Amino acid sequence: MITWKNMDTLASYQELQSVKPVALRSAMTGENGAQRVQNYSVPMGEGLAFNYGARPVDDDVLAVLAKFAQEAQLTEKFAALYNGEVINTGENRRVLHHMCRGQLGDAVIADGVDKREFYVGEQKKIAEFAAKVHNGEITNAAGEKFTTVCQIGIGGSDLGPRAIYLALENWAKVNNTLKMKAAFISNVDPDDAAGVLCTLDLAHSLFVLVSKSGTTLETLTNESFVKDALIKAGLNPSNHMVAVTSETSPLAASADYLAAFFMDDYIGGRYSSSSGVGGCVLSLAFGSDVFAQFLDGAAEADILAKNEDLLKNPAMLDALIGVYERNVLGYPNTAVLPYSQALSRFPAHLQQLDMESNGKSVNRFGEPVNYATGPVIFGEPGTNGQHSFYQLLHQGTDIIPLQFVGFKNSQMGSDVMIQGSTSQQKLCANVAAQIVAFACGKDDENANKQFAGGRPSSIIIGEKLTPKALGALLAHFENKVMFQGFAWNLNSFDQEGVQLGKVLAKKVLAHDTDGALKVYSDLLNI
Amino acid sequence: MITWKNMDTLASYQELQSVKPVALRSAMTGENGAQRVQNYSVPMGEGLAFNYGARPVDDDVLAVLAKFAQEAQLTEKFAALYNGEVINTGENRRVLHHMCRGQLGDAVIADGVDKREFYVGEQKKIAEFAAKVHNGEITNAAGEKFTTVCQIGIGGSDLGPRAIYLALENWAKVNNTLKMKAAFISNVDPDDAAGVLCTLDLAHSLFVLVSKSGTTLETLTNESFVKDALIKAGLNPSNHMVAVTSETSPLAASADYLAAFFMDDYIGGRYSSSSGVGGCVLSLAFGSDVFAQFLDGAAEADILAKNEDLLKNPAMLDALIGVYERNVLGYPNTAVLPYSQALSRFPAHLQQLDMESNGKSVNRFGEPVNYATGPVIFGEPGTNGQHSFYQLLHQGTDIIPLQFVGFKNSQMGSDVMIQGSTSQQKLCANVAAQIVAFACGKDDENANKQFAGGRPSSIIIGEKLTPKALGALLAHFENKVMFQGFAWNLNSFDQEGVQLGKVLAKKVLAHDTDGALKVYSDLLNI
Repeated sequence: MITWKNMDTLASYQELQSVKPVALRSAMTGENGAQRVQNYSVPMGEGLAFNYGARPVDDDVLAVLAKFAQEAQLTEKFAALYNGEVINTGENRRVLHHMCRGQLGDAVIADGVDKREFYVGEQKKIAEFAAKVHNGEITNAAGEKFTTVCQIGIGGSDLGPRAIYLALENWAKVNNTLKMKAAFISNVDPDDAAGVLCTLDLAHSLFVLVSKSGTTLETLTNESFVKDALIKAGLNPSNHMVAVTSETSPLAASADYLAAFFMDDYIGGRYSSSSGVGGCVLSLAFGSDVFAQFLDGAAEADILAKNEDLLKNPAMLDALIGVYERNVLGYPNTAVLPYSQALSRFPAHLQQLDMESNGKSVNRFGEPVNYATGPVIFGEPGTNGQHSFYQLLHQGTDIIPLQFVGFKNSQMGSDVMIQGSTSQQKLCANVAAQIVAFACGKDDENANKQFAGGRPSSIIIGEKLTPKALGALLAHFENKVMFQGFAWNLNSFDQEGVQLGKVLAKKVLAHDTDGALKVYSDLLNI
Repeated sequence: MITWKNMDTLASYQELQSVKPVALRSAMTGENGAQRVQNYSVPMGEGLAFNYGARPVDDDVLAVLAKFAQEAQLTEKFAALYNGEVINTGENRRVLHHMCRGQLGDAVIADGVDKREFYVGEQKKIAEFAAKVHNGEITNAAGEKFTTVCQIGIGGSDLGPRAIYLALENWAKVNNTLKMKAAFISNVDPDDAAGVLCTLDLAHSLFVLVSKSGTTLETLTNESFVKDALIKAGLNPSNHMVAVTSETSPLAASADYLAAFFMDDYIGGRYSSSSGVGGCVLSLAFGSDVFAQFLDGAAEADILAKNEDLLKNPAMLDALIGVYERNVLGYPNTAVLPYSQALSRFPAHLQQLDMESNGKSVNRFGEPVNYATGPVIFGEPGTNGQHSFYQLLHQGTDIIPLQFVGFKNSQMGSDVMIQGSTSQQKLCANVAAQIVAFACGKDDENANKQFAGGRPSSIIIGEKLTPKALGALLAHFENKVMFQGFAWNLNSFDQEGVQLGKVLAKKVLAHDTDGALKVYSDLLNI
């Protein structure tokens, strides 16, 4: 029997307040530090490992976190989710994105169908469509192959698929599996669509329109923008466009599209990369085999997230250490710092995933909570960040927990030896050095050169950023955010906070404003 | 006579603690709100205005902030800076980036030359070189014109110039002044250089190597990477590369470069966009006239920053409201949210500018301070952010001050009318709506749909994002960060916090490690 309780009502949370905090600097120094880094590591699937040696926990803290996981029934709640219970209570919806990549529990029958079969069926439809595009069965009106795919979508229909495309573009090039270049149009700013379109060869471009509801104003506006451009170029838009939407949306049965692929209300936007929202553009870009590998990696991470043993469940462990940092130690932010240029937009996707899921002040019953919830998430790739904002991370007045990601091998294999080391070795040496610099600091008589240390981080280490590894990485963070939402007793799957702005923007466009809103509208010439 | 004092020793700062805080929600509601938005606006130069109607201040708070500005001698300190005093005491350097765009005060003679003449002289050298590249006097060995310019640099040699290039690329296209496409290589991750190089036509590419010291390891490594690629393509690297560096650097007199352009120790990396660091790549990409317009816009904003009247000095005003939010109201972050896709990487540049300048715990004398200093800066363009992390901004448990930027007109002028409004109108309607939604909130019986409001923001409004407007925008933030550094009594122009990581990374590469650092090195296969 699952009970949903606020975190501050749990005995283990009270205990967590009084457990002795870890003196990270001394804990990470000397042989003790070496032992921590060796011991505090857990496999994440696909050769990845989550190493939390430099997070501010020890066996005592971990023991209380394990009690917390049990008392908060975290794995039971996950089981309820993947077995199809209505976890998104505010919107009265199941939460089934895991089912796009595997069957973790019971069959879920909804809307008259087995949902796993439904998602797999859509994947097959997409794979067949992509194969026909690649082999020239589906072409433009002149019988020529499409060379570029351009996604039109915003938020979850943009950030995840875009981050994944960028993460695998160079991998695909060297593995001869880049079938089509991908582009993305998202912002309602007309300079976004206009700027992207002037880089495209329209006659050989296929557009993927993504909107679950079929009513997202930014996306429909950009669709019109693209259609205008196609018509001006003498092309028939319906030969150049497919839709990814829900079966009940106005787009579903429209003749305006070459094809339509379906998702449903049980796939939230920010969790939709595994569905057709990511699957269509990525299968077109890389081939459906590559997308299938990505799903396999995610599936492997999902299975690990079922483990009741906290120390063998990297997503739950990462989640609870984060709760400890947020609520007991009081750190308001987390930085995500991948030492991989391919992951340049991965932090932007995690920013949505995390902040939109858990940036909330009421629990799942709509009652205000008395504790801090989701932190601010930000980040840029290393080593670039080192030459940018790391100054504050090292010597600023606030402590900011850090999540590093690093890979032993580069994607493209091209490298250069300078001063006795390759670029890849320099990259990895830097992330190793940063972890220790943050944790251990360095004393100096000159206070300006003093590093206090005690700044926590973890690192996810992988062999190479492959489609499978990327899938496991993404699923790790999705599951981490889910477990934190359970811990904070939130509904991580709605987003009521985006509604008010929509309502007021409509009023502005209808010139139905007064007070400050009218003045801003006038100042902006609307 | 200037005295440098910690903020908490100032009487006006003590007074600031006790002035009655503004109830932003009610202040922004009704006719009172309309009046605030109309009155709380100050010109920023180049048709831009800084509107702080929705920041948590009123006439009483502003009066104390004005006292603070005077007691902290903010404009006198700025005058000392532009008159050439050694403001960067830790590194014993003047701070002269303003002089790249104008002469704000006395002539500064250093290293035996008038520094304004020196910077202008380098601009002229760059302009002449760029003109020769554009008109075909300087070509590749086959006598063909260069079509692409690729900057090799990291941190301040990358983020600012890249953000500016992206901000003006589409403007230049429609104004027929895009002379060369630009690309950027920054990360020591070998996949960065390899990935960029495989998109370039090497025979027609000109590389700009940027390193003030001539010793930045990432940049020299990427230079070698590029030289290898040029040689493999049968090209002579010295025909394809120019350097931007200091006159004392090993690169300055090397025969490896077609030309060398100089900066000096008085231009900090994150303040170097106005120098040859930005000037070379941007003059090649857009023509030197466009870069000159950018400098003119910055110069205009710099002159406004001299104003002793707080209410007529937008940079100082923005700075002090930020100090009030950080130190009296206790908000640890600031989000930068440009409603302009062209400014997609502008927040990343401001992130370095702000966090590297003021993310410090010791004052300019090397003594620990007892108050919070620089906040975390993050952001993405709107409307994209609305579909991503705005959920937390609206309904999260922390309050995060917001800096919006919006323009009345798009850059490219291409637009589409959907549901009675253009995309540009929708874009502007959204930012107006967001400001009011954040400030005023909305009550709802369902707590999940409740918006508490009281979330502060300001907006910078411009006519169009032109080179001049962009210059004024950049200078505003540079000067804001400078004034905040003065307020907090920091040295905003050094970055000792980046040193420890460099030292430890060298140890890792030399296999001179023990303890935790050795284990991380082993885990990463170094």
